[in-house]
Amino acid sequence: MRPSGRLHLGHYKGALENWLLLQNTPNIKNYFLIADYQVLGDHLGETEKLRSSVIDMVIDWMSVGLDPERSDFVVQSYVPEFAELFNFLAMFTPYSVATNNPTLKDEMKKIENRESSKSDSISLGFINYPVSQVADIMLPRGQIVPVGEDQVPHIELARKIIKKVNTMYGTNFPLPLALLSDTPRLVGTDGNDKMSKSLGNTIYLTATLDEIKKQVNSMYTDSGKTSISAPWNIEKHVVFQYLDIFYHDKAHIAELKSKYIAWGEDSIGDGGVKKLLIEILDTFIKPIREKREYYLAHPELVIQAIEKWSTNARKVGQELLIELKETMGLVDYGKELIVK
Amino acid sequence: MRPSGRLHLGHYKGALENWLLLQNTPNIKNYFLIADYQVLGDHLGETEKLRSSVIDMVIDWMSVGLDPERSDFVVQSYVPEFAELFNFLAMFTPYSVATNNPTLKDEMKKIENRESSKSDSISLGFINYPVSQVADIMLPRGQIVPVGEDQVPHIELARKIIKKVNTMYGTNFPLPLALLSDTPRLVGTDGNDKMSKSLGNTIYLTATLDEIKKQVNSMYTDSGKTSISAPWNIEKHVVFQYLDIFYHDKAHIAELKSKYIAWGEDSIGDGGVKKLLIEILDTFIKPIREKREYYLAHPELVIQAIEKWSTNARKVGQELLIELKETMGLVDYGKELIVK
Repeated sequence: MRPSGRLHLGHYKGALENWLLLQNTPNIKNYFLIADYQVLGDHLGETEKLRSSVIDMVIDWMSVGLDPERSDFVVQSYVPEFAELFNFLAMFTPYSVATNNPTLKDEMKKIENRESSKSDSISLGFINYPVSQVADIMLPRGQIVPVGEDQVPHIELARKIIKKVNTMYGTNFPLPLALLSDTPRLVGTDGNDKMSKSLGNTIYLTATLDEIKKQVNSMYTDSGKTSISAPWNIEKHVVFQYLDIFYHDKAHIAELKSKYIAWGEDSIGDGGVKKLLIEILDTFIKPIREKREYYLAHPELVIQAIEKWSTNARKVGQELLIELKETMGLVDYGKELIVK
Repeated sequence: MRPSGRLHLGHYKGALENWLLLQNTPNIKNYFLIADYQVLGDHLGETEKLRSSVIDMVIDWMSVGLDPERSDFVVQSYVPEFAELFNFLAMFTPYSVATNNPTLKDEMKKIENRESSKSDSISLGFINYPVSQVADIMLPRGQIVPVGEDQVPHIELARKIIKKVNTMYGTNFPLPLALLSDTPRLVGTDGNDKMSKSLGNTIYLTATLDEIKKQVNSMYTDSGKTSISAPWNIEKHVVFQYLDIFYHDKAHIAELKSKYIAWGEDSIGDGGVKKLLIEILDTFIKPIREKREYYLAHPELVIQAIEKWSTNARKVGQELLIELKETMGLVDYGKELIVK
């Protein structure tokens, strides 16, 4: 995950909920990556914010229940072994394959449209990032990678490159699989497809009751009617979309929806469903908010979590690199260089 | 220097002689890089030879007088800090600048002409190598880089990138200068511009007397005459070219040349100049050959030289990386991770 500061409900539903499931699955060792190098590439001139973004994000991780005792929190920039492995993998990757990646091409177009000086807006580091992600996955011998659909080409690239290494050297590094979430994408409070800080349509994972009220009360309540006489269609009704996702009593939701549409005597209006959603969200967020308070008062726990487990990841990574280098005939030294 | 096995006289005149000068200049700290990653990129399927190529090359370095007590011998693949620094520098390098490098373009064309499957023949690692060379230079805060003319664009790229880092973060990393050799290029024994193992036109730095005789006797002795009545022109006479470079008695050479051209009673023929060159080369090579024998009998000295000074380079490199990261606001950790 790129550290871009405090997380919102979209992050929870899109990623963290899956991560918690994986963390609670027996016999799975999890590595959660804080991809600060990737953020750095876009913000070379404003690096002073990066550190606080990392801390904010990790506090949110811990507040929702990710547990550094059970999973490794890994800061990319703390683990130079990622860079070293990338160096090897770049040699196995045809330039044409690296640059024909559809996700990369899309993002290149976006950057070029956004920036004024087109020729300088894309860095070499940006071109390298899909293969750099392959190193992120391979270093801890990743087998299952929870991703969004737009990241699937990266996992395919990883399988291709790692397969080539295995074929060439008879190694047995695992080929990773993409784990897609089946949660529908959480829309912004304004109904916009994308929940984003800059659009102001987010609800933070650690919002106060007042903040929740403000955001829910401003929610877009689309009747779905195309004319006055047309039938109701609440598919795009933001409040119901949120209830579908966060409220576990599905029978009650069905009942509310039919009453809302019937508009009869015992109907429930926008005010009613909003009030319910505020209650549901506050119940969901309250324990997270309280944990955040606790970690804010104990920042040393957060720092320890990052440092201890990044160091752990370095060890795991160095083991892989030594295996790879020995297989390639590169070293018979090295064990004494490992981080103790 | 790329480790491609035993070195020949061309390597000595093109590089090592300059390195020895630098080593013997007071107050200059030298780092001599064994660029095994670069070789690796071209020979992924035949890495087993790489290690012996490294050893062979380092023995030759030591045999001509490069001294691991005074200079650091650095194996690229032993120093992951190169990869880490590359990772940063790639973010500072516009993709357009990285790929418009004229030397890179030339080499890309050569590879594409050589290989049958054009689209896959260039790796992402190859595209990265000029910026990777910038990391090689910057990591030990390199100030003077002895290079051939074809490498000058790489030094210009280094100045450009390091300047950008300095401007952005107020750092003071030195901008390197290219040190060009003024030695004329040593031709192959067959008169071919390029001295290369595969053409069989080389004299190894550690050739036996028999090998020297064989190569000198086979030398191309071009009279330079365009017709029988035309004047002599011994500019392309390989034996004289070698004498010009390896024989210190310039007056004697001038005398020999005029006698050779005059073709009079006291003239000296091809046999005579060849005999002289054999003597000169054997005198030059003999002490190198003897040192090689010594190091072959004491391989532990070679291994120690590589390992000790690569570790030393890691320390120097980690200091730079910590300075860079701290300036960028990336870490306040790290010192405990340094290699002791």
